[in-house]
Amino acid sequence: MRRQITGFSNPTVKFLRSLRDKKHRRQSQRFLAEGLRLLTDARAGGHVPEILVSAGARTPHPLLSELEETVLAAGGEVVEVTPDILAKITGKDNPQAVAGVFMEWDTSLDALDREAAPIWLVAQALRDPGNLGTMLRTVDAVGAGGLILLDDCADPFSVEAVRASMGAVFTVGLARARWDAFLPWLRSGAGQLVAASLRDAVPYRGAHYRAPCFILVGNESQGLPEPYEAECDLRVTIPMLGRADSLNAAVAGAVLAYEVLACTRAPAAS
Amino acid sequence: MRRQITGFSNPTVKFLRSLRDKKHRRQSQRFLAEGLRLLTDARAGGHVPEILVSAGARTPHPLLSELEETVLAAGGEVVEVTPDILAKITGKDNPQAVAGVFMEWDTSLDALDREAAPIWLVAQALRDPGNLGTMLRTVDAVGAGGLILLDDCADPFSVEAVRASMGAVFTVGLARARWDAFLPWLRSGAGQLVAASLRDAVPYRGAHYRAPCFILVGNESQGLPEPYEAECDLRVTIPMLGRADSLNAAVAGAVLAYEVLACTRAPAAS
Repeated sequence: MRRQITGFSNPTVKFLRSLRDKKHRRQSQRFLAEGLRLLTDARAGGHVPEILVSAGARTPHPLLSELEETVLAAGGEVVEVTPDILAKITGKDNPQAVAGVFMEWDTSLDALDREAAPIWLVAQALRDPGNLGTMLRTVDAVGAGGLILLDDCADPFSVEAVRASMGAVFTVGLARARWDAFLPWLRSGAGQLVAASLRDAVPYRGAHYRAPCFILVGNESQGLPEPYEAECDLRVTIPMLGRADSLNAAVAGAVLAYEVLACTRAPAAS
Repeated sequence: MRRQITGFSNPTVKFLRSLRDKKHRRQSQRFLAEGLRLLTDARAGGHVPEILVSAGARTPHPLLSELEETVLAAGGEVVEVTPDILAKITGKDNPQAVAGVFMEWDTSLDALDREAAPIWLVAQALRDPGNLGTMLRTVDAVGAGGLILLDDCADPFSVEAVRASMGAVFTVGLARARWDAFLPWLRSGAGQLVAASLRDAVPYRGAHYRAPCFILVGNESQGLPEPYEAECDLRVTIPMLGRADSLNAAVAGAVLAYEVLACTRAPAAS
């Protein structure tokens, strides 16, 4: 169905705006993503928006027209609004010309196939949605299978996380679990658990990584709880030559992921 | 001087709040940093706040008492406010118990000693203060000399950048310049300019990095302008195995910086 909306108080506009709130996302099991590039990636990942909202451009981009056809064919809605309304919906002064509403999907561990990729990122109590999105982007870049979120993490379906993921939220694996459920799942199959640590650790460079390698990154301010570190099959140290004793969580994950990538593709002579 | 402030409309409180605005920071050449850890790092980097604001704890931390003495000895002000006022000043619901006002310092290229470190990070038109702060943190971690900000970058003295730097803004080198000024400065001494690139590039892993190595990272959405890339002494590729063709800017900088660190400390057999 196609329609135009010109009023801020329209119920659909109110619903779309409400998706900036975690509470409303949880209730509706829906979330918002913006930008033609992201929506195109979403489609490539098999995710078609239920509602596609665009701020009428005079000559629509061919990719947008295609997307509209896909949405309509799937029984979704194509809504045209004013740029002002789109700005309200996305909470950005200069919004991209298009946004979509997606149904959340299954993020249980059972939805992952651990054998599908040599690397997995695992984040524990990651609080910053920007870091979360950045890690999803890194997952895509290193050809990892996905990101597993442990304990109380930021919402991967928040506008900020989706934006920072640059579309990777739609194309890489994503799971959420408590540590108590993750650990038995991990130990029920192949998988090396690796973390950066200062305790009883070997240099991260050229360490003996084994695929599938699960790289565990801790909370931004607390790091990993000690029992989690103790459970790791391999603890590695990243050089810290300055005053600080840790890197940004997304940076630490990426530095390790690229090292694991290099080592599992062409193992260093030992 | 020591004093207590209990009113939101106090001129000092208004001034402190105004420092969240770039315009007011520029006018006053002052900025705000919060948290005991950050302020302690600041002192270690030779920066003593002109005004120290704390929300009276019953038993002050010994480091805070020390800091107060340092501020008073340097002729600064120690101000005690209510937690509500401190929250207003820092714009955070749960502010750290202390914040300080600092004078900005010389961020010209001339303030840098390029021979002082084997690695330097250079960011061009970096727009996200979180990315900027994260890069400062990486500079500290890899033992780099500092971060050079080219063209129109986010403000390194914004609350967000200072916070994301975890104090590194006070302890590592920092310079701001236009490309047209940076390039002659770079070429007036030793220095290899390196960028991640898709054009005419060699694998980043084990490439021939030479200290002092200047790692150039481009704008979040546009990447580096072509002429900047062309000027580089070495162009390297980071594997991108997924759908996207780039990493988060701070992540790319860190992956390269750790590679340069490994190669310049223990050069790979060629």
